[in-house]
Amino acid sequence: MSTQPSKELDPIANPYPERDYEILIEAPEFTTLCPKTGQPDFGVITFRYHPGPYIIELKSLKLYLWSYRDEGHFHEEVTNKIADDFIRFAKPKYLEVVGKYNVRGGISTTVRVEYREEK
Amino acid sequence: MSTQPSKELDPIANPYPERDYEILIEAPEFTTLCPKTGQPDFGVITFRYHPGPYIIELKSLKLYLWSYRDEGHFHEEVTNKIADDFIRFAKPKYLEVVGKYNVRGGISTTVRVEYREEK
Amino acid sequence: MSTQPSKELDPIANPYPERDYEILIEAPEFTTLCPKTGQPDFGVITFRYHPGPYIIELKSLKLYLWSYRDEGHFHEEVTNKIADDFIRFAKPKYLEVVGKYNVRGGISTTVRVEYREEK
Amino acid sequence: MSTQPSKELDPIANPYPERDYEILIEAPEFTTLCPKTGQPDFGVITFRYHPGPYIIELKSLKLYLWSYRDEGHFHEEVTNKIADDFIRFAKPKYLEVVGKYNVRGGISTTVRVEYREEK
Amino acid sequence: MSTQPSKELDPIANPYPERDYEILIEAPEFTTLCPKTGQPDFGVITFRYHPGPYIIELKSLKLYLWSYRDEGHFHEEVTNKIADDFIRFAKPKYLEVVGKYNVRGGISTTVRVEYREEK
Amino acid sequence: MSTQPSKELDPIANPYPERDYEILIEAPEFTTLCPKTGQPDFGVITFRYHPGPYIIELKSLKLYLWSYRDEGHFHEEVTNKIADDFIRFAKPKYLEVVGKYNVRGGISTTVRVEYREEK
Amino acid sequence: MSTQPSKELDPIANPYPERDYEILIEAPEFTTLCPKTGQPDFGVITFRYHPGPYIIELKSLKLYLWSYRDEGHFHEEVTNKIADDFIRFAKPKYLEVVGKYNVRGGISTTVRVEYREEK
Amino acid sequence: MSTQPSKELDPIANPYPERDYEILIEAPEFTTLCPKTGQPDFGVITFRYHPGPYIIELKSLKLYLWSYRDEGHFHEEVTNKIADDFIRFAKPKYLEVVGKYNVRGGISTTVRVEYREEK
Amino acid sequence: MSTQPSKELDPIANPYPERDYEILIEAPEFTTLCPKTGQPDFGVITFRYHPGPYIIELKSLKLYLWSYRDEGHFHEEVTNKIADDFIRFAKPKYLEVVGKYNVRGGISTTVRVEYREEK
Amino acid sequence: MSTQPSKELDPIANPYPERDYEILIEAPEFTTLCPKTGQPDFGVITFRYHPGPYIIELKSLKLYLWSYRDEGHFHEEVTNKIADDFIRFAKPKYLEVVGKYNVRGGISTTVRVEYREEK
Repeated sequence: MSTQPSKELDPIANPYPERDYEILIEAPEFTTLCPKTGQPDFGVITFRYHPGPYIIELKSLKLYLWSYRDEGHFHEEVTNKIADDFIRFAKPKYLEVVGKYNVRGGISTTVRVEYREEK
Repeated sequence: MSTQPSKELDPIANPYPERDYEILIEAPEFTTLCPKTGQPDFGVITFRYHPGPYIIELKSLKLYLWSYRDEGHFHEEVTNKIADDFIRFAKPKYLEVVGKYNVRGGISTTVRVEYREEK
Repeated sequence: MSTQPSKELDPIANPYPERDYEILIEAPEFTTLCPKTGQPDFGVITFRYHPGPYIIELKSLKLYLWSYRDEGHFHEEVTNKIADDFIRFAKPKYLEVVGKYNVRGGISTTVRVEYREEK
Repeated sequence: MSTQPSKELDPIANPYPERDYEILIEAPEFTTLCPKTGQPDFGVITFRYHPGPYIIELKSLKLYLWSYRDEGHFHEEVTNKIADDFIRFAKPKYLEVVGKYNVRGGISTTVRVEYREEK
Repeated sequence: MSTQPSKELDPIANPYPERDYEILIEAPEFTTLCPKTGQPDFGVITFRYHPGPYIIELKSLKLYLWSYRDEGHFHEEVTNKIADDFIRFAKPKYLEVVGKYNVRGGISTTVRVEYREEK
Repeated sequence: MSTQPSKELDPIANPYPERDYEILIEAPEFTTLCPKTGQPDFGVITFRYHPGPYIIELKSLKLYLWSYRDEGHFHEEVTNKIADDFIRFAKPKYLEVVGKYNVRGGISTTVRVEYREEK
Repeated sequence: MSTQPSKELDPIANPYPERDYEILIEAPEFTTLCPKTGQPDFGVITFRYHPGPYIIELKSLKLYLWSYRDEGHFHEEVTNKIADDFIRFAKPKYLEVVGKYNVRGGISTTVRVEYREEK
Repeated sequence: MSTQPSKELDPIANPYPERDYEILIEAPEFTTLCPKTGQPDFGVITFRYHPGPYIIELKSLKLYLWSYRDEGHFHEEVTNKIADDFIRFAKPKYLEVVGKYNVRGGISTTVRVEYREEK
Repeated sequence: MSTQPSKELDPIANPYPERDYEILIEAPEFTTLCPKTGQPDFGVITFRYHPGPYIIELKSLKLYLWSYRDEGHFHEEVTNKIADDFIRFAKPKYLEVVGKYNVRGGISTTVRVEYREEK
Repeated sequence: MSTQPSKELDPIANPYPERDYEILIEAPEFTTLCPKTGQPDFGVITFRYHPGPYIIELKSLKLYLWSYRDEGHFHEEVTNKIADDFIRFAKPKYLEVVGKYNVRGGISTTVRVEYREEK
């Protein structure tokens, strides 16, 4: 099994697809580089979703988040991008992604993106 | 009285069946095995329900949760299964089961299942 | 003034009966006996109510809760019974009684009863 | 400027009267006397209001709360009275007054009064 | 790049303008002068907004808040003014500004301003 | 096995008598009666001891603490008495008993008794 | 029994005078007047002592602390004075009095006085 | 590499053997069976040690703690046994093992074992 | 009385000069400018001292800390300088000054200076 | 000024070299790679030191910690190495380095290294 950073998420079959239930995933070990200064940024990414046909395998999520380690991203942009990727791979009924980033210049930022499947 | 792990829950008559009230049960001592690695997983299972004809006897709930100790289960699947069993034995008006599982690979998972009796 | 345990609550005139307001009472010193084993159980009883014609005098509430000290009661039953007695004496517009009981067998239980005056 | 206890609150012009916004004031240093025993009672008074034509000057609020120091009041009555006075002086669009009083006889009491301007 | 206090906020293009998402910014290092006594006041300013065409660059927000350091402002007025400036520069779909100011005379004040874009 | 309140503690053989180690026992469910008013008092009893020839069986400790439920005791006296009984039954090398009693009249009391075996 | 403020503390016989043990008393409801402005000050007084011939009856301590309600005192002076009075009435082997006073002008003060009986 | 429960700990060479430093390991996922009832017990095991020639590989520690899952042990005995095994495999200069076990019968127990290498 | 920033502290006579006691002062509203960038820095200054002939009047301490508002200082230097000034004005038997400064660049700094009067 | 990762720390002259004082630095944004799996590890590094001739410039410390981002290190080894480097550049009178690393396999590790200058 791969243990390399990856832009792919591994969707596996939802064991209870007929039920609308919720999965909350907290990933406190997220780091990227600041696109302006090249210096490391740190944050906590939280996913709250109602699975559709798939649930996301946790190890693949870990490798996915790892893939940002050497990339430059703004907080607002990367949180949206992570949400887009999650939607593309998991096709959830509902998704909330929250990125809570550490203090810089005495100020901290949290970005919250919400998605609801169209019916 | 039995003190063996059991897949049965013991429903006893709801002493106030005419009233819609809520019972919250926190069981922080839940452990299973990881179906991939065979290694122990740990979590906290919480039940919040509005009893119908029955309330669930707490000792039987303890023996029921114990029955998972030597079984392999994924978090998403086992939380749904516990909810199904609770619904089958207790026939509640409303049920929420939350399974909050410990950190693995720097990531923690919580699964929340909700049920409302059809009218 | 009596300082004996009592099954009576002392209703006194609500000083602002024309206003719909809320009173929250926390009583963390509640103890009964387990009806199965005869051993002491402990819990916290919370009342949140919107008074109607009466408010409940606090000392009488203390003596009332004391009256359970030597009686055997299940958590679900006693919380409902306390709510019934409070409704009978205070005739509130709204009442919520929450009984939060200590851990037994690794499991803790909270029972929440809600009441709304019929209009 | 006066530094005596006073039953008057000092309303000053709301600098943004056209906007519906919220002001939260926490006053943790409130004390009265118990009307039964004459002994001191202590509590925290919180105001949350949407100002109308006026906002309340904070020093006058401090002197107002001070005015209860040597008076006997029941918790339910004094919380309502403070709300009435605040409404009379500030003419708010919305007001919530919460009085949270310290433990007496193992029991603590909180009184919450809400007011909405009629339209 | 400037590092002087400034009354300008720097709006930059919202990277996901088609999505309604939320940005939370906490700035715990806010200080002004009391307009009555000239003495320093301290507080925490929090912005929660749904960006429209722009997001606000964080460094410019820091310089903007710095610009209040030597000015005299009442809590109610300055919180509204900060909201007005944010609306003018960022044109958000939704904005909440909360100013939580430190205890003075035993009393603390929080001011919360909310704005929704007209449709 | 008995499940009655008892003034006896059950000493069992210390499995590691040759080692000086520490056992901490927290018993948050202690209640007596006030010797003046006859009303219930509540507290938390903590034992920290270095066992000598015996360790104390926990169920017997529970029954022992239960034995105070219907007795009148002052905080200072009962904490010392509990320590004396523990010393008599367990013969520890070191013992600390702490009784932390709930607020009465706005004041809370903690009594701490320490004992060291004479050499 | 008196329920008036009093400058006397009521010493009662120490039930275990032969043992060096500790009593901790927390009194969070202390208020005096500022000697400069006449305005109320608030604080928490904590006593930690090793009793000699006497322990201090808690109700008398409550009435004693009440006696400061209408008096003007500086924090440093009143904490020392309370310690002196406690020593005079209780003749403890050891005493620590801590007065923790609320924020004034953005600054909070705690005064700690320690006493050890001369041998 | 093995992923089976094991009674062996894997000592690896201390990378800084000439320095007296400290390693703290917290293992909150410990479970055994009660030797009396056969029912599961849960606890947290903490190791604090000053390594001698070896440090303990963490995965082997995890497999070692797993080995208690199906065994019956009293709290006092198992904490001492774990300490003995750690000493035997790691030969530390100093070791503290703390086992903090969950509430049973309203009472919780913590066992602390300390070891210092003889010189 | 002055309400201007000042480099003077106002020593007043210690009311209990014969006793070795402790005064703890917490001042959470300290701000200076960074000597490199000119941007504001924020911190909490705590004084813990055993007074000699003088105690420090709190209002003068507030004005003293205010005097740093427009000055550039490094954390290590300013904490030491504040300690020196306090020693010069108060001549304490013992002094500890702690400056806890807010996060900059993901790193926070605390400086602790201790002083003992020579005998 | 450089903003590249660096193995150099920048010592600057201690402004108060004649005084033995303490500096505490908390750096919660430390990340390396696991030497076995190549996957990211995360931790918090804390420095507590008594400066000798130098204090360490904070920006250089940040760049220094950054230099570990792409290197593989065991927790025990890297904490010791960081301490060695700090000693070499800062020549402190006293140093404590604590590395607190995130949970892996249900177990968390903290390594604490202490150093005292020889006299």
